[in-house]
Amino acid sequence: MSIEEAYNKYRTELIDAGLLIPSGVPGVYGLSDRFEHVIEQFDQYVTRRGAERHPEVMRFPPLLSRESYQRTDHLDTFPQLIGSVHSFTGNEKEHLLLIDKKMKGADWSVGLSKTDVMMTPAVCYPFYPTATGTLPTEGRTVDLRGFVFRHEPSIDPARMQIFRMHEFVRLGTPEQAVEHRDYWLKLGEEMLLGLGLDVKPVVANDPFFGRGGRVMAVSQREQTLKYELEAPVASTEKLTAVASFNYHMDHFGLPFDIKTPDGEVAHSACMGFGLERVALALFKKHGFDTAKWPANVRKTLEL
Amino acid sequence: MSIEEAYNKYRTELIDAGLLIPSGVPGVYGLSDRFEHVIEQFDQYVTRRGAERHPEVMRFPPLLSRESYQRTDHLDTFPQLIGSVHSFTGNEKEHLLLIDKKMKGADWSVGLSKTDVMMTPAVCYPFYPTATGTLPTEGRTVDLRGFVFRHEPSIDPARMQIFRMHEFVRLGTPEQAVEHRDYWLKLGEEMLLGLGLDVKPVVANDPFFGRGGRVMAVSQREQTLKYELEAPVASTEKLTAVASFNYHMDHFGLPFDIKTPDGEVAHSACMGFGLERVALALFKKHGFDTAKWPANVRKTLEL
Repeated sequence: MSIEEAYNKYRTELIDAGLLIPSGVPGVYGLSDRFEHVIEQFDQYVTRRGAERHPEVMRFPPLLSRESYQRTDHLDTFPQLIGSVHSFTGNEKEHLLLIDKKMKGADWSVGLSKTDVMMTPAVCYPFYPTATGTLPTEGRTVDLRGFVFRHEPSIDPARMQIFRMHEFVRLGTPEQAVEHRDYWLKLGEEMLLGLGLDVKPVVANDPFFGRGGRVMAVSQREQTLKYELEAPVASTEKLTAVASFNYHMDHFGLPFDIKTPDGEVAHSACMGFGLERVALALFKKHGFDTAKWPANVRKTLEL
Repeated sequence: MSIEEAYNKYRTELIDAGLLIPSGVPGVYGLSDRFEHVIEQFDQYVTRRGAERHPEVMRFPPLLSRESYQRTDHLDTFPQLIGSVHSFTGNEKEHLLLIDKKMKGADWSVGLSKTDVMMTPAVCYPFYPTATGTLPTEGRTVDLRGFVFRHEPSIDPARMQIFRMHEFVRLGTPEQAVEHRDYWLKLGEEMLLGLGLDVKPVVANDPFFGRGGRVMAVSQREQTLKYELEAPVASTEKLTAVASFNYHMDHFGLPFDIKTPDGEVAHSACMGFGLERVALALFKKHGFDTAKWPANVRKTLEL
């Protein structure tokens, strides 16, 4: 079975079981009560395990200030994934032209203007602009969870355009940042293995755009900045990343002017579980009926 | 105190207390753990009370198919509120031009193209396209909750651009739809009064665009299609809608071809609690320290 066939097969099974509700757009789905419940229970398990290190807890909506967005290099490195939010700010006459275009089946979106917001590309993006200034000696650790957008329409049910991540971000010295990433790589593997998922850690790279991006990807791998935990989802041959662990160096500390107490630019690291992907991996492994999942998994997730 | 002063005062108090985390964009905030917890507990209370009528439960992300969106008249009636999601689909050369514009501080958003998705304007919008076909005799009742976007930047902390609604939608005959709206108007008032909020029901209208919109608003009020429950939030003089109750007639049944068993176009009604607004009203009424809220409120919300 080709990978495309595997994607289509699992996607069809999920839709037939009522777990995924198609929207007509690849990678955008409604979720059934059961699917949502698995996500919520796993999310709470992540909160409980993360609480062992007493993070601050913040929640951001799926939008980010455009001004803050522009201070990052996201548009330079991932333009193909962005979501820019546009609206109508014209007068009544311009509105009539807009509606005329819509009625004729023409592209009415060209009559819109950019708003002050962008779709959030990763749950930690809205946090950094709020952290400008000098960190305490112990640095900061933050628990974040929310929706993120990535414009990559796909038939792979695990590659959604809009999905939730539960992240833990660390700001501090290079040592504090690397320690956080490595702590979570170990804990994340332990947690997912404990839920019966056959995860394995791999060195990874981000999907940087274009030819320049290929150089960046090689560099990121050579410096082992990014790891992922991969698990079988649609396919047991081509695995799917269900969690990622990233050391950013000064990539966010620099544009948002975040400093350690000794005046150095703060380094950061984040780890994130892809909540829909973890749920999809659990449904693949244990079946669609959560009442029949192994007792230890049901107990851990308080199902 | 003018209403603008009242908005600024409550907004500043919320930010100083750490409950709201400013993003730099009016109406877009991060929320503290305590704020989020009140929302989650109220949301679960709503689920419990809604369960008395055994709704189906579905969860949609904050995006809607553009094709489905275009089947509604939202662009005709609320163009000022829309969120159209755009991305970059060009090649490397076009990307260089985009980045050049960004570096020069020019408007790089003009180099983007529309995607297949729109921001969801109300939580029930993604549901209707999935309901095409013939309803069962008893109609359908659905529990929905999620983020919605409305492009209306404001200093009023209760007027967010992105916020969560918990909705109950009814599809069926005109009688079934009206009964649903009236049932929830009574239950919603009882629930919010029980939490100590001084709510009162009022006939309301949607913020239709332009001069034609003013005619639509008058017609909507004359037919008493929409009610709201208003409560003091930033101001005790100018109240804020914290829940709305709408009878749509065949407004969604028609474009999405939803029929009753006898072949008539389905009518619909929805009610929605604005979760951030209810939380803001509770903080205003009972103070910022939830440990000091009245015992009966803490018990109802399982705080």
